Amino acid sequence: MRFEINKDKLLYHLLIAQKALSNKTPNPALQGVKLDVEANALAITTSNSDISINISVEDGGLDVEEKGSALIPGKYFIEIVRKLDGQTITFSKAEDNLLRIEADHSDITLNTLDLEDYPNIQFTKKDSFIKVNVRTLKTLIRQTAFATSSIENRPILTGVNLTIDGDRLNGVATDSYRLSQKTISLEDTYDKMNVIIPGRSLEELMRILEDNQSDVELHFDQSQVLFKYKNILFQTRLLEGNYPETSKLIPQEYPVQIKFNKEQLITSIERASLLSSRDGQNAIVKLNMRQDDTVEISSNSPEIGRVLEEVYPVDEVVGSPIKIAFSSKYFLEALKVFNSSEVTVKFTGEIRPFVIEGEYDDDMLQLILPVKTD
Amino acid sequence: MRFEINKDKLLYHLLIAQKALSNKTPNPALQGVKLDVEANALAITTSNSDISINISVEDGGLDVEEKGSALIPGKYFIEIVRKLDGQTITFSKAEDNLLRIEADHSDITLNTLDLEDYPNIQFTKKDSFIKVNVRTLKTLIRQTAFATSSIENRPILTGVNLTIDGDRLNGVATDSYRLSQKTISLEDTYDKMNVIIPGRSLEELMRILEDNQSDVELHFDQSQVLFKYKNILFQTRLLEGNYPETSKLIPQEYPVQIKFNKEQLITSIERASLLSSRDGQNAIVKLNMRQDDTVEISSNSPEIGRVLEEVYPVDEVVGSPIKIAFSSKYFLEALKVFNSSEVTVKFTGEIRPFVIEGEYDDDMLQLILPVKTD
Repeated sequence: MRFEINKDKLLYHLLIAQKALSNKTPNPALQGVKLDVEANALAITTSNSDISINISVEDGGLDVEEKGSALIPGKYFIEIVRKLDGQTITFSKAEDNLLRIEADHSDITLNTLDLEDYPNIQFTKKDSFIKVNVRTLKTLIRQTAFATSSIENRPILTGVNLTIDGDRLNGVATDSYRLSQKTISLEDTYDKMNVIIPGRSLEELMRILEDNQSDVELHFDQSQVLFKYKNILFQTRLLEGNYPETSKLIPQEYPVQIKFNKEQLITSIERASLLSSRDGQNAIVKLNMRQDDTVEISSNSPEIGRVLEEVYPVDEVVGSPIKIAFSSKYFLEALKVFNSSEVTVKFTGEIRPFVIEGEYDDDMLQLILPVKTD
Repeated sequence: MRFEINKDKLLYHLLIAQKALSNKTPNPALQGVKLDVEANALAITTSNSDISINISVEDGGLDVEEKGSALIPGKYFIEIVRKLDGQTITFSKAEDNLLRIEADHSDITLNTLDLEDYPNIQFTKKDSFIKVNVRTLKTLIRQTAFATSSIENRPILTGVNLTIDGDRLNGVATDSYRLSQKTISLEDTYDKMNVIIPGRSLEELMRILEDNQSDVELHFDQSQVLFKYKNILFQTRLLEGNYPETSKLIPQEYPVQIKFNKEQLITSIERASLLSSRDGQNAIVKLNMRQDDTVEISSNSPEIGRVLEEVYPVDEVVGSPIKIAFSSKYFLEALKVFNSSEVTVKFTGEIRPFVIEGEYDDDMLQLILPVKTD
């Protein structure tokens, strides 16, 4: 193996591949970045228990002299490439388990890992796949994955439930205290599909996806899904089991509706969260719509102090006065995924779930369960 | 107590006062920010076991309606001020241990701490004090305090030894593996003085001092020193004991001298530190000046790999080939405090301390003890 590559190009792709590297893996081979050098292409592969990434580097900036493969300790490899001077780096196999890295006035020899210990990872593209605009997919992930459960006692809730019905792709996430739902339109029509993808995998994918007009291909398999974006293959396992039926959680009628300026509502809830013994964002905050249609956001921690915020709804309020208490973390996280600058909060009753919607957030709904107080 | 104050002005000063706040103090009163409101001034006081800060806010943006004092839990106080909307905040005492904070549409009531529990802190200005340009003092701290010891088994080495001789102020710090020394000129001449100031106190002070042409006043007392900078009084305890005599550690003759481009030397040592099992910066790195006057910077960790860097000295080298090994952390930290872009490393022998000097770093010297290798 011997090849030359542009430093910035390699680093750019290594930082993407890094998202599937784990330092904590029980299999030391998975701490490695696998390089496969072909006549005109370099393939970079990384994998942990959830995600596998394969990137093919082909265009300018790569000059292969001799084909070959190597498994390189990821931690050192990426730091070395980051710190090297010069535009071009030359990689060559010095001996069987030694990689030589030369650039400018640096000459580095790195012990490599044993290629035979690396699992055989299949990145399985299918003949039929689903095509989604990258920006739309990013939005769906951003607006749902945060609401998955981070505790593992009901593993199914750590995933986002993706379903396809015709030309609609629907994502739902819930940790049983709140629920996020977003539907996007596809250009084509597909067979019905219902899978659960780990929320954390989707969040890593989101960090790789850019904001442009490219497409992402979704190739589904029995136990995994492969996302193909440009020269990147991102594969994640699926969660097994049946996702709970969430549609019946969503109220049908909302006798009380209040429209807020989103930023005002966020800063009021943030301030009301400040004086909490329950560690910041997780404070219990009350919303009280008064007779005069102004809204009070308040909190009270007897040992610390109390906060009272007045917020003026944007439009005329629908319905009669209501008092409701909630976890500020859930309300704030939901508000922050809206693109709209104004949001409507819709209530069914004081101990019933309430939902948030936004004019410029089509087919997106955030639902939050209130907290009972005395 | 009742006063109005400009939000940004208050926050600016609270963030300075915060440097003397500790969440870990055994005395809960010291978690508080003490406010003393006079007819035309607000005094902000904070203190921990090492440092006390007193700031007097007087100019525009303050409107006192009723004098008084309060001791306010620092953590909540600063966060509230940071998060409030509006330009002006009104503070008033609601009841004995309740502070009311009003701004824009926010109305916050905060439990205060008991003023009687707060220690009586004297900020003792003297008739005779030492005057130093703020930028010069910052430089002295930056170039010495980092070399103090961070472990407490010889407490005296956690401090910087400041001595005054005529119109010269000299600072020395050592952790017994390296030594930093910087001397600055004063405008006036003073009596001899010899004190040891905790390095951490000086680092906090450095963060408060700005880069301008103002003066800092140093008021020395038996057990403490007060720095007066603009409207800020910063007081720290002194360390008791005799500082070791360090001047005899510094070699008198340097038969080998090599001048380097500082940035090149830094990046070479950084790369040589990458493949270390000793956790990054603490790697053992070797410097080898060869017969041909080029210099090799190298490291070797059998289980990880090896790095070989070639560095070309800037000028002709003085002396004969030399090999020396050092802790990369010490060499890098020393190099990074130089203002000069070229530095001269001066050697006495392979197991003798070596020093670094820079053309544009007058009266500053960094000394490092080499590491013995086989």
